[in-house]
Amino acid sequence: MQGHTIYFDNRPKIIATATVAGPKETEGIVGKYVDLPLNNDMFNEETYEKAERKMLAYAIEKSIQNANLAKEKVDLLISGDLLNQIISASFAARQFGIPFLGVYSACSTMSEAFALSASMVNAGYADTVVAATGSHFSSAERQYRYPLELGCTRPPQSQWTVTGAGSAVISNKGEGVSITAATFGKVVDFGVTDVNNMGAAMAPAAADSLLTHFKDTGLAPEDYDLILTGDLGALGSRILKDLMWEKGVDISANHVDCGEVIYKVIEDEFQGGSGAGCSAVVFNSYIYDKMMRRGEIKKVLFAATGALLSTTSSQQGDSIPCISHAVVLER
Amino acid sequence: MQGHTIYFDNRPKIIATATVAGPKETEGIVGKYVDLPLNNDMFNEETYEKAERKMLAYAIEKSIQNANLAKEKVDLLISGDLLNQIISASFAARQFGIPFLGVYSACSTMSEAFALSASMVNAGYADTVVAATGSHFSSAERQYRYPLELGCTRPPQSQWTVTGAGSAVISNKGEGVSITAATFGKVVDFGVTDVNNMGAAMAPAAADSLLTHFKDTGLAPEDYDLILTGDLGALGSRILKDLMWEKGVDISANHVDCGEVIYKVIEDEFQGGSGAGCSAVVFNSYIYDKMMRRGEIKKVLFAATGALLSTTSSQQGDSIPCISHAVVLER
Repeated sequence: MQGHTIYFDNRPKIIATATVAGPKETEGIVGKYVDLPLNNDMFNEETYEKAERKMLAYAIEKSIQNANLAKEKVDLLISGDLLNQIISASFAARQFGIPFLGVYSACSTMSEAFALSASMVNAGYADTVVAATGSHFSSAERQYRYPLELGCTRPPQSQWTVTGAGSAVISNKGEGVSITAATFGKVVDFGVTDVNNMGAAMAPAAADSLLTHFKDTGLAPEDYDLILTGDLGALGSRILKDLMWEKGVDISANHVDCGEVIYKVIEDEFQGGSGAGCSAVVFNSYIYDKMMRRGEIKKVLFAATGALLSTTSSQQGDSIPCISHAVVLER
Repeated sequence: MQGHTIYFDNRPKIIATATVAGPKETEGIVGKYVDLPLNNDMFNEETYEKAERKMLAYAIEKSIQNANLAKEKVDLLISGDLLNQIISASFAARQFGIPFLGVYSACSTMSEAFALSASMVNAGYADTVVAATGSHFSSAERQYRYPLELGCTRPPQSQWTVTGAGSAVISNKGEGVSITAATFGKVVDFGVTDVNNMGAAMAPAAADSLLTHFKDTGLAPEDYDLILTGDLGALGSRILKDLMWEKGVDISANHVDCGEVIYKVIEDEFQGGSGAGCSAVVFNSYIYDKMMRRGEIKKVLFAATGALLSTTSSQQGDSIPCISHAVVLER
């Protein structure tokens, strides 16, 4: 490890991805690229939690299919989600019989899973690993905030949890987007206590990981075609750019936040999208297609961002610790 | 990966450990070996959750001290716990400034963290990794079952969540117990729905991982001085031995379960101890000392066991999916 960054010299590759997303999500830029756009966010299930689980299982299964693999060829599934005890991931894993590593990193789960998957494949421990995560607006609302039935007003700084899931197959064989490095984030807490203002809470963690990455690697923002954060939303993205600017690093030319761009009419969703599914859907559909099929961008620094609070920690007066793991993706 | 097992040829070592445990726990076999036996399970904090977090942070810090390292020398902290959104781990990580990987594997967190730590050190990604977890009886009761104030009767098949935390420093330098292989578990669910009978739910997952391990490695139970499961308790351990016996594998001569042995008077705690802290405390105090200082045992197969349910999954009628990750420890 040089600083907080590790390098994957064997260039493990994302050889296939799959995504599923709800009706509101597929109205936006990802709509053309998701494998399964849902008409109904219940996905023929009885509860939101079961719908979330089904989306995640769908994405995992479809990504393995898209890689033309039998599921017996997958050595490891690395997954987590936002629900208590990551039940979406654990229950989805139950149906595959693949060795399972549960991870929790809130909305930075996608990049933590990419970093770990690449670590396992690059070292030769595994030939093929699946990394997946997802979220559901309605299960997240009732777990983290209020039951939807209460009809609570959402404040203007809030974000909308993405209903969707994304999965990627990382392998030592085949064609795809290589994962060439990972910078592990540390927990950063600037003292934000407003649970409706996740963007402000997470921006310092994203800034910390991006600055660490540039310092460790000697690279600069212009070395990347795209610097992709997870779900800071409009406000959080502005704070991130300001924090970076203060340290003399200007990312404004090539920064895009998945949360800021996922919804068509941003005004309705206030600051944009959030949730583990946000960057999972945007990266594994729109961005992966842009790198692979369309060949429009070559090198991406992907830093999903997570807020590590729980309702208990907030109720006991704690502020919101956040984290961001960054991975380098190259075509 | 051969089958579900990976090998660590560079023999990353557990060079130091540290543990802390509550008054009930330190009355038993671990009492002489924990770094900090608590007189009061509140640990001078206002809430059970904050006491749990403080124990975990104590164990992490003390293990780094016991390894004679500065915390800046630790490349990565891998931790998780039983509370929603693993807040004990995330908030403990906040105070160290070490890159943090959050994991969730219920009560098999200790062996998942060992497997991942060894993976990172063996591959040369990191020189030194800290793996840690813990639990607290009172925070677990009110999150998973009932508030203590209700005074609910505990059924005879129940287990007692261990109040305690354990941490280990895994390094490519120094003397210690080597982690030489890991068998990643898959999610196994035999349809148990009784949330008070975790031992019965988890035993099939432990059996699956142990059988997979013996098959992958060609080893047999007698190749180990000790086969150490996490927190099956008395009933779960009996079920495990039966399930193994049915497959022609007899582990009765050298199997010990951390949950079965942690408490002095097992009748009071019914089936014994459970919780992520159970195997974390027993391994990192009593067993580590037995391997290192006393030199009484050389080769241990450590398979912590986890039940991946949440209150939501149980309330929605789901059975209890379980998992067990196994690691080989050699002196």
